[in-house]
Amino acid sequence: MVKKYKKDSLVSYTLGITLTIELLEKKREHVNKVFVHSKINKSEGFNKIENLCHQNKIPLIYNDKVFNILSHKENCFIIGEFNKYANIITDNANHIILVNPANLGNLGTIMRTMLGFNYKDLIIINPAVDSFDPLSIRASMGAVFSLNIKYYDDFSQYIKDFKMRTVYPLMLQAKESVANNKKEEPFSLVFGNEATGLDDKFLKYGKPLIINHSNDIDSLNLPIAVGITMYEFSKTTFNKKA
Amino acid sequence: MVKKYKKDSLVSYTLGITLTIELLEKKREHVNKVFVHSKINKSEGFNKIENLCHQNKIPLIYNDKVFNILSHKENCFIIGEFNKYANIITDNANHIILVNPANLGNLGTIMRTMLGFNYKDLIIINPAVDSFDPLSIRASMGAVFSLNIKYYDDFSQYIKDFKMRTVYPLMLQAKESVANNKKEEPFSLVFGNEATGLDDKFLKYGKPLIINHSNDIDSLNLPIAVGITMYEFSKTTFNKKA
Repeated sequence: MVKKYKKDSLVSYTLGITLTIELLEKKREHVNKVFVHSKINKSEGFNKIENLCHQNKIPLIYNDKVFNILSHKENCFIIGEFNKYANIITDNANHIILVNPANLGNLGTIMRTMLGFNYKDLIIINPAVDSFDPLSIRASMGAVFSLNIKYYDDFSQYIKDFKMRTVYPLMLQAKESVANNKKEEPFSLVFGNEATGLDDKFLKYGKPLIINHSNDIDSLNLPIAVGITMYEFSKTTFNKKA
Repeated sequence: MVKKYKKDSLVSYTLGITLTIELLEKKREHVNKVFVHSKINKSEGFNKIENLCHQNKIPLIYNDKVFNILSHKENCFIIGEFNKYANIITDNANHIILVNPANLGNLGTIMRTMLGFNYKDLIIINPAVDSFDPLSIRASMGAVFSLNIKYYDDFSQYIKDFKMRTVYPLMLQAKESVANNKKEEPFSLVFGNEATGLDDKFLKYGKPLIINHSNDIDSLNLPIAVGITMYEFSKTTFNKKA
């Protein structure tokens, strides 16, 4: 029986053709089935889904009722169902840490931007929104299926697991600018909640940094702050390649 | 008679205490009235609004029905009504140009980030979403009231009005990285629509730039691309100040 998605559900869903293709290409081993609405157009995208399902012995199920339960968009005619899975964080890679992110859209945008700047490992500190929520999957444009994501109940536990790295908490209380800083790899970039940022205890971890901005705003929007920091830390790499 | 906001309405609205304070502080000359819901708590914010209205002879009107028409949020107890106004773009300032932006939330986020990096002049090329839409005002967190915003029907008209400047279109077709570029002031940073970007004709304007990113994503999210570019172009200024 299909039910509305909840955080403690064992399965989650990709709403729409593009996201379902991304799911089938990146995480086919976790896919249970693909639902098809009777009003679907037999487009190129749909042919791709049919082929991927056939190759991987994943059932295609025609069922319109499921769409009323899972999707609020009128133009959604494909839904993928997959078992939620656990990831292993890469030890010697650079990490992005989000402490208590509260907005599904922001989380999705950050995941998409991570992929754009070649960050593959995301640690999220609870309480936090759910990276497997269909809304977060959609905002990530499927990037969630290319990332390693792990939740921790507190930051100190993460630090115990990953000792040999430089921690850069991004915070308004910091004195050093993200622009001037020399980057020591592997590193962890740490960002606080949308409304409250990181509290003072993070000043004691590693090297706190700030993105300088005018006094006309209280703080930058979270995905923008994460985007700018990842860009700044990856610039050398990207311009070597370019 | 108060009606649901439309693009061609002569008035618009700030939903909530914080935005209404921002409106009263920045654009008091355009405010018609402030609506108050009977369930309001007499908080510090409300006192501030009472004082600002009293000083500026702006009527405070208790009317609960207006809230059903204009707001979908249950916790909105203050609405400011103002006459929409025209702005003059600063000739020798750096400009942000958005070509056909389609998302109100993105426009708001970009306006807020502009204020954060000291950009005050925004040109929007039609067709485009409306910077005075209450949803855009809210996403801007009131930044809209600190910016000069002007709509043009096409980019070539803008170029005729503002000749003496360097134009930097941000586009995937560009070869030079935004990171390496030497900035010539005053400049105009030009960004395309969320889905389609800028078309090839922009290659002939000024110096096209790209934010290098991995091939794993098609493009960066628009507010993130704008944020990174403004950050990069303002870095020298900000670090001199810091």
